[in-house]
Amino acid sequence: MTTANLPPQHLFAVTVGVNDVARQRAFYEAWGWKPSPGGSEQYAAFDMGGPLVAFFSRHSLGEEAAPGEAVPADGWNGTTLAVNVPERESVDSVWQAAVDAGARSIASPVDRPWGGRSGYIADPEGIRWEIAWVPTPGGAL
Amino acid sequence: MTTANLPPQHLFAVTVGVNDVARQRAFYEAWGWKPSPGGSEQYAAFDMGGPLVAFFSRHSLGEEAAPGEAVPADGWNGTTLAVNVPERESVDSVWQAAVDAGARSIASPVDRPWGGRSGYIADPEGIRWEIAWVPTPGGAL
Repeated sequence: MTTANLPPQHLFAVTVGVNDVARQRAFYEAWGWKPSPGGSEQYAAFDMGGPLVAFFSRHSLGEEAAPGEAVPADGWNGTTLAVNVPERESVDSVWQAAVDAGARSIASPVDRPWGGRSGYIADPEGIRWEIAWVPTPGGAL
Repeated sequence: MTTANLPPQHLFAVTVGVNDVARQRAFYEAWGWKPSPGGSEQYAAFDMGGPLVAFFSRHSLGEEAAPGEAVPADGWNGTTLAVNVPERESVDSVWQAAVDAGARSIASPVDRPWGGRSGYIADPEGIRWEIAWVPTPGGAL
């Protein structure tokens, strides 16, 4: 392998297949995010400080990313996304605001064995977000 | 909701539950990435230019993120991750290098209706990566 063929160690996007893109867009706007321009009924993206978090029709994404395989059933997808708040004291209020915006409570914030504090919510499609405070950004999550 | 309780529109981490963390670490190192310090048998993280892409024991992640729910079965998890290469001509060689490093070919690179070019590979756990060239970075994927 030549250096030119190394993949950039830089995340461009996380795209999650969903049943209802419009519902996703509405939830994330209610939670406080601004969508990227250019969305559609099939696609919504949010600029997450560089990388995009995008939602795409599950069947359409499956046709591209898993041709010939079963589309995953509803339920937890085995992945979590995380935002990091700057102060330990903010975890609980940001977590509560997500629930107030319509998220499902998965786990109330607790102090974690790795030294931080975090809680989990699920969006309308069950996608998990960890709202975390991490003592050393970039350290073990 | 007060502004202080808005979630940061900034992705801190994507964590994917896997069966074999050591195999993940080995594959991504073979593909050309450098792991973050501090990993373990249960956890490996890669700094993706800001956000982390992390692999965590699937059962351990499930205990945190989906308590009481079934752990997802093997197979496509309904999510794709993407890296963006700077030139259209690089998509094919970067894609091929991934396959040479042990990735499974999912879809050879093709020109996409949205104007870019991309192909898909799967890592040893079936996690999908889109290797893309995007005409307008930050535009629709």
